[in-house]
Amino acid sequence: MSVSPFDHPILSGLLGDPETAVLFSPHSELAGMLDFEAALAEAEAAEGLFPSEVAKDIVSGLADIPLDHGALALGVGRDGVVIPGLLRQLRAGLPERARPWLHHGATSQDAIDTSLSLRLLKAGAILRGRLGAVIAALDALAARDGALETMAHTRMQAAIQVPAARKILSWRDPLARHLARLDAAMADVGLLHFGGAAGTLEKLGDKGREVGQRMATRLGLALPERPRHSERDGIAALASWLSLVTGSLGKLGQDLALLAQSEVAEVRIAGGGGSSAMPHKVNPVGAEVLVSLARFNATLAGGIHQAQVHENERSGAAWTLEWMLLPQMVVATGAALSTAEALVRATSFARDE
Amino acid sequence: MSVSPFDHPILSGLLGDPETAVLFSPHSELAGMLDFEAALAEAEAAEGLFPSEVAKDIVSGLADIPLDHGALALGVGRDGVVIPGLLRQLRAGLPERARPWLHHGATSQDAIDTSLSLRLLKAGAILRGRLGAVIAALDALAARDGALETMAHTRMQAAIQVPAARKILSWRDPLARHLARLDAAMADVGLLHFGGAAGTLEKLGDKGREVGQRMATRLGLALPERPRHSERDGIAALASWLSLVTGSLGKLGQDLALLAQSEVAEVRIAGGGGSSAMPHKVNPVGAEVLVSLARFNATLAGGIHQAQVHENERSGAAWTLEWMLLPQMVVATGAALSTAEALVRATSFARDE
Amino acid sequence: MSVSPFDHPILSGLLGDPETAVLFSPHSELAGMLDFEAALAEAEAAEGLFPSEVAKDIVSGLADIPLDHGALALGVGRDGVVIPGLLRQLRAGLPERARPWLHHGATSQDAIDTSLSLRLLKAGAILRGRLGAVIAALDALAARDGALETMAHTRMQAAIQVPAARKILSWRDPLARHLARLDAAMADVGLLHFGGAAGTLEKLGDKGREVGQRMATRLGLALPERPRHSERDGIAALASWLSLVTGSLGKLGQDLALLAQSEVAEVRIAGGGGSSAMPHKVNPVGAEVLVSLARFNATLAGGIHQAQVHENERSGAAWTLEWMLLPQMVVATGAALSTAEALVRATSFARDE
Amino acid sequence: MSVSPFDHPILSGLLGDPETAVLFSPHSELAGMLDFEAALAEAEAAEGLFPSEVAKDIVSGLADIPLDHGALALGVGRDGVVIPGLLRQLRAGLPERARPWLHHGATSQDAIDTSLSLRLLKAGAILRGRLGAVIAALDALAARDGALETMAHTRMQAAIQVPAARKILSWRDPLARHLARLDAAMADVGLLHFGGAAGTLEKLGDKGREVGQRMATRLGLALPERPRHSERDGIAALASWLSLVTGSLGKLGQDLALLAQSEVAEVRIAGGGGSSAMPHKVNPVGAEVLVSLARFNATLAGGIHQAQVHENERSGAAWTLEWMLLPQMVVATGAALSTAEALVRATSFARDE
Repeated sequence: MSVSPFDHPILSGLLGDPETAVLFSPHSELAGMLDFEAALAEAEAAEGLFPSEVAKDIVSGLADIPLDHGALALGVGRDGVVIPGLLRQLRAGLPERARPWLHHGATSQDAIDTSLSLRLLKAGAILRGRLGAVIAALDALAARDGALETMAHTRMQAAIQVPAARKILSWRDPLARHLARLDAAMADVGLLHFGGAAGTLEKLGDKGREVGQRMATRLGLALPERPRHSERDGIAALASWLSLVTGSLGKLGQDLALLAQSEVAEVRIAGGGGSSAMPHKVNPVGAEVLVSLARFNATLAGGIHQAQVHENERSGAAWTLEWMLLPQMVVATGAALSTAEALVRATSFARDE
Repeated sequence: MSVSPFDHPILSGLLGDPETAVLFSPHSELAGMLDFEAALAEAEAAEGLFPSEVAKDIVSGLADIPLDHGALALGVGRDGVVIPGLLRQLRAGLPERARPWLHHGATSQDAIDTSLSLRLLKAGAILRGRLGAVIAALDALAARDGALETMAHTRMQAAIQVPAARKILSWRDPLARHLARLDAAMADVGLLHFGGAAGTLEKLGDKGREVGQRMATRLGLALPERPRHSERDGIAALASWLSLVTGSLGKLGQDLALLAQSEVAEVRIAGGGGSSAMPHKVNPVGAEVLVSLARFNATLAGGIHQAQVHENERSGAAWTLEWMLLPQMVVATGAALSTAEALVRATSFARDE
Repeated sequence: MSVSPFDHPILSGLLGDPETAVLFSPHSELAGMLDFEAALAEAEAAEGLFPSEVAKDIVSGLADIPLDHGALALGVGRDGVVIPGLLRQLRAGLPERARPWLHHGATSQDAIDTSLSLRLLKAGAILRGRLGAVIAALDALAARDGALETMAHTRMQAAIQVPAARKILSWRDPLARHLARLDAAMADVGLLHFGGAAGTLEKLGDKGREVGQRMATRLGLALPERPRHSERDGIAALASWLSLVTGSLGKLGQDLALLAQSEVAEVRIAGGGGSSAMPHKVNPVGAEVLVSLARFNATLAGGIHQAQVHENERSGAAWTLEWMLLPQMVVATGAALSTAEALVRATSFARDE
Repeated sequence: MSVSPFDHPILSGLLGDPETAVLFSPHSELAGMLDFEAALAEAEAAEGLFPSEVAKDIVSGLADIPLDHGALALGVGRDGVVIPGLLRQLRAGLPERARPWLHHGATSQDAIDTSLSLRLLKAGAILRGRLGAVIAALDALAARDGALETMAHTRMQAAIQVPAARKILSWRDPLARHLARLDAAMADVGLLHFGGAAGTLEKLGDKGREVGQRMATRLGLALPERPRHSERDGIAALASWLSLVTGSLGKLGQDLALLAQSEVAEVRIAGGGGSSAMPHKVNPVGAEVLVSLARFNATLAGGIHQAQVHENERSGAAWTLEWMLLPQMVVATGAALSTAEALVRATSFARDE
């Protein structure tokens, strides 16, 4: 089954990005939730909420208990979230004494959003590296072809000749700025989510903060002053950043497609795509794909912004909408960066002959 | 891998719809393209462009030649479309004499868009049936509970009591109108796409129209007066229709979630979801999902409308954008209709006691 | 003040359309509401709800009572809708006996949505005429230049020569289909809205239907079987249609901008725009504006689809969102059609020399 | 004429914000362009490109020459930008010797984008102040009502009691984060745009950088290393920020509308709106408007992200799209902040009695 091109065994050859996509596999998602539950058990035991043997039971259970994905799917269809069904399966595999302490004081959103935090940090690191690689490719292009004169175009008309370097830098500089913006975006999502039923950790007495600090340290996440279940600005800011990146790459792609037009021929893109009807053509496939991914992310970013209207302490509707949009945006950005690097490396400006 | 919840082994328990999703599987997509190629070969042979034995070679080859999806993925990554790689594999499996006649006079978009047409007609039939089922469920609800008095709310405030039937009909009537609109939407997409490289069927001499008519008849598609490669209004009109449907169902979901609030309790939804932190709660999961799916489709519909700006005779950028959005919209609509039917059947209005 | 370019004394020279914009002026809006109130009074008197002298008082009062727009603005800031403040002003100007009967049995949304219906029908007539004019301009272009050979481009690369007529028809045919779709769109919005507080006309006893029929006849609107206050599919279907139209025109504009590129020069657009820095350039301003308007409407269409999630019997939030989006979409469509006609009339295909 | 509610003499009573709207009036726009031209003339004279008397002619001419807006509208309709027509009017009013030096070396986009920079900085200052005011209002609410117990709701169901302070802080904290994000957003747009025809300032010889520095100092703008005509990330980042703000306020509005429901009554909003049909109702108008404005900005933000695909050295299409969207987003944000402050000040949590 492959409704999304990112999951599609064939189309993912064009649009996919396995390295970021794997962060959104069921395995990765569940692993993040289990990491949350293990960190929670250890922290609660360390704070004396229950014996450390119980925490050991839980941690080793989480590592070993096999999960039935089909039953989890049934559970999520009923509960709207995977956690109740997951806990049922885990509890059945735990020793009696540990069962009541699994997930103690936490709520579904704590585990689910924390799992997302862990994976978004990984995604951020991947995207950071790729942004650097695209910048390096553009620098190499500028070093080789930057002194060539090329035609600038304004409002779809030839304007004046400019050095290719001017054009290349107009593609590069926004990427450097996106790199600078990434720290803030990551700081807003690399958070432990831990609030319990309604954000008050009411079942942990006066130990809530200490438990949270232990968990955050162990998971490599920041602990916000208060849980942010219903405050989705970090997610919306990240989505905006993703669409900034793909937007800049879409501009690069659009420019290359325009410059590579048969009649313009200011750049040559090596190894373009073939046509089933016109074998003589060389299509600027990567350049076009960058435009598609830019418009895709621009579209979905609007939906994530809609999801900020997250009613009350937890909105099933708005939160589920994020699940439908954000992973695709991350993978689209990963795919765009890889495509852009390859495209830039295949590009050369025309030399007068 | 499962970037999209529709492809996700677990989340699809909440958001998926296997019956429509399968229409967008690689198998279904390729099957539609092979149907196109078979119909093309038979029609061209019938019009005397080559011997009928060649057509037989092609038709039986299409049925038998095993396809290497991994190689197709590599091909689509290079060519932007699957057809050149697919033809390479098919030609290698055909007898020598048939190879040049496979795909004769056609272009990639002919096969790909026709495959989509075939599958959208199937999707339309599924959605039509489900719309009827939701309407029937609402009619049953009105028959049972319609005479009960329930509170109307305007601008988020209690207004006056109305019969539940009034409310139920406000959910039902738009669905009946969507059913009436579906014929036009299907007529706009149930088309044979057949134009060759630039829409002129220049390789078929004066036989283009006749070949097209034979193909359309065999495939159960309409033959437009001129090929519509670059005219995407049918796709955008269908996307609009899909979002109309999910929008109306989102309104139903939002209303039910509001009416089922603990403090309002005008309706009861049986079998709602459980909470990991608060076992006493019954969450209106299906109602919330309808809102999520409505906002999802409303978001993506905007992207499909962007893709109408389809430059020249064929835009890689705009066309690829459709691939990223339209299948998800169809499946979201399928999921919303199934969810709505179950939700309505689980709903009862409160009786005064 | 002119936040929107459609209202802007200078930018409206590029993007405006006075003929459709005037339909959304405060004067037009209020006139539509007053027409509603007059029709209501006459119909209620004709059905014996009050003496015909009272109706005469109301009708002549509506024609004569001067309105204080500043006070209306204060009222809408408080009430969210203009009607309560408008009724206050009107009642103060009516004879004592008529005051209680003004707006009898109706609600704000009845008057506001009916006013919109009246103006959307006028907009539809204007847009219909302009669609015809663009089609006529394209037919004239095809008659003059259709036999010229021009280069087709697929995936941003020159493909093969085709007759210009092929290209022109790919711009024209979608417009003809939009014209055919307009009837259904207008039928969905050309409706009397009349339901009272919660859609049940409870204050009119058994006369509600008869009053509605009289009003509909007088106002030239259709009377739906039930009031549709909370059923926004007609609005969303119209918004979709508007964006279909501008999308097709955006494709035309994009194509012309590409064909008019200095290096391509397949078409010439007479009277293009000047540049402050490069007087030698002729910019394809109208062509670019069509792309802008297409992307603008595609964006806003998504927002109207969001507004379908119209909670309960009347949603202040979703309804107000329509007010912010729909008028701009109508005017953008009007502007795009005018721009397109002028652009097509200024376009000629290149003749080989 | 008032297609947009922000320009509408009546609806602006509900949705308008005169203080930010005035920044987008023709007068303000032109004033910013004239400031650019004056700064340019003075800087060029100071760098010895022409005598200082010429600069004085220009500066005093800019202050005095009356502008014919009707002629400017005609010009923008022809040229796509106002500058060529504006320069014609200005030159006609200048002494002969100064005419060729007006706008020397600059391009339309330099003046238009710099005018926007100047006004966005002012908008930023206004929005910053208002964010502070909403935060202060929430702090006051927390100080007064924070200790009251109120019902938390998750997934549209009552969950557990929490102190009102918890809820209020979940509205406040995102606003404090938006305030912290504003500096970066302003740094990305508070820029001098100065590049000449294609970004290379080719007419200024080796004086381009010096002239730019003088201009930036005089105008209070930052001078980027290279002109950013075609790099729209700053605009898209600002649009994202605006939608973050309105998204958080939309969440506040949605929450208050839900808490103020007749059946829930956890908060009371003083001075709500009246209904024409049900005088007993008090509608939470401001709360609903916040939701409308959030969804409006979320919609338009997607369009600004589309406009990042800004082709070549200057895209008429993408740039014009920004003009159609960004001013409305700024004013929507201004309106949302004012509405939110008033709403919070009118809100009180319920006390048990």
